[in-house]
Amino acid sequence: MANFCLLIQYDGSRYNGWQRQGNTQNTIQEKLETILETLYGEPIDLNGSGRTDAGVHALCQVANFKIPRILSRYSCQEIQQYMNDSLPKDIRILGVEKADDRFHARLSAISKIYEYRIDCGEVANIFDRRYLVRIEEPLDFTKMREAADYLTGEHDFKSFCDNRQMKKSTIRTIHDISLELENGILTIRYHGNGFLYHMVRILTGTLLEVGIGDLLPSRIPSILEARDRSMAGFTAPPQGLFLIDVFYE
Amino acid sequence: MANFCLLIQYDGSRYNGWQRQGNTQNTIQEKLETILETLYGEPIDLNGSGRTDAGVHALCQVANFKIPRILSRYSCQEIQQYMNDSLPKDIRILGVEKADDRFHARLSAISKIYEYRIDCGEVANIFDRRYLVRIEEPLDFTKMREAADYLTGEHDFKSFCDNRQMKKSTIRTIHDISLELENGILTIRYHGNGFLYHMVRILTGTLLEVGIGDLLPSRIPSILEARDRSMAGFTAPPQGLFLIDVFYE
Repeated sequence: MANFCLLIQYDGSRYNGWQRQGNTQNTIQEKLETILETLYGEPIDLNGSGRTDAGVHALCQVANFKIPRILSRYSCQEIQQYMNDSLPKDIRILGVEKADDRFHARLSAISKIYEYRIDCGEVANIFDRRYLVRIEEPLDFTKMREAADYLTGEHDFKSFCDNRQMKKSTIRTIHDISLELENGILTIRYHGNGFLYHMVRILTGTLLEVGIGDLLPSRIPSILEARDRSMAGFTAPPQGLFLIDVFYE
Repeated sequence: MANFCLLIQYDGSRYNGWQRQGNTQNTIQEKLETILETLYGEPIDLNGSGRTDAGVHALCQVANFKIPRILSRYSCQEIQQYMNDSLPKDIRILGVEKADDRFHARLSAISKIYEYRIDCGEVANIFDRRYLVRIEEPLDFTKMREAADYLTGEHDFKSFCDNRQMKKSTIRTIHDISLELENGILTIRYHGNGFLYHMVRILTGTLLEVGIGDLLPSRIPSILEARDRSMAGFTAPPQGLFLIDVFYE
């Protein structure tokens, strides 16, 4: 089989998230698979590195698909060109590469970076407003940094997962959380080996509650320990969230 | 009279340009005047530094209004706060300042900067797509630079004006045209003492025709000399155009 790896960028605003599943219409995966099916004349299964929720964006999502060598009649460049010509303007293929047979966009991934972008400038941002969440209250960055330090490392993140039926392990490692303020925009950058359902958005909601003074940073260890979703902060809205990068061995 | 100067930012996509005139609905000036009228309880005339066309944006438009001192009961900060609370998300007041009695946003202006932003990256830009014009053809920047040099200085720009009934002088001075390429986005920056109707968009259309090879830079002097709109390039679409700054003595 030929194995192709796609690097994909999208504005998630109009979509029901990455993953095609059951009756969910209008997903990014579905858009891409439909175009690949037209190109190859047969159904193609695309493996994404992970789901992104409805309304979440990607600077660089990774996906792969396999096709019998005998049907693999297009070069990487031809695939990219055809897909970009067919896709709506809010989805772009940044690159197509031939991958090793064993490469699987989800199973081979070792870590991911997500960014959450918050507009806390004096005057609300106009031109990036669709990709920011606006916070009017002043944020205490020192306290947010302190809370972020408690969240870094290997923990059971069950309190930070919106899937109550989650049977699998909820232990994950966050390698790093960075906070950067530039031109009134606070970017919280999460690098971890994996993220549970809504985890980045709940981490962000919790950090924001710390930032506005509703929650003390020192409360974080007991929130982790509780393994209870209701203890953590709110689920921050999707529009500020970007999948930035996926790392492989 | 108290004289107030407003610094205004807007995404022009949804609006019929800056200027309220005759039957034109949904202009930016009208939005601002309506809010000021509600604030002061009587009609307010706002002078903009100049019109921007339908669909054109502003990073910093300047406008002023006068009000009898006896009615001037709000501080600059209160005016800004009230306006930002009332305005839609695509218009923001960046600042309000008390101005000298003689200050007039249009008549006192000595020069302006406009930028036109063109997406000529390998893959089309997603997140700024509403504020860019996409050009698929490769652009010859050296030739565009050469053409820009011919356009710089004091000239009769009648060929670069879409108003055929223009009775007043069409002589203007362009102090500088700069071209800058960053992350696949070409920004053409125009600094001049004044711009005619559609002038920046026709200058840009002409530079783009030079860039894709449809027009030789050496043709520019005869286009200027002709004083004939049909000799210059096309009128580039409004969405890539930003009013950046207005200068006063």
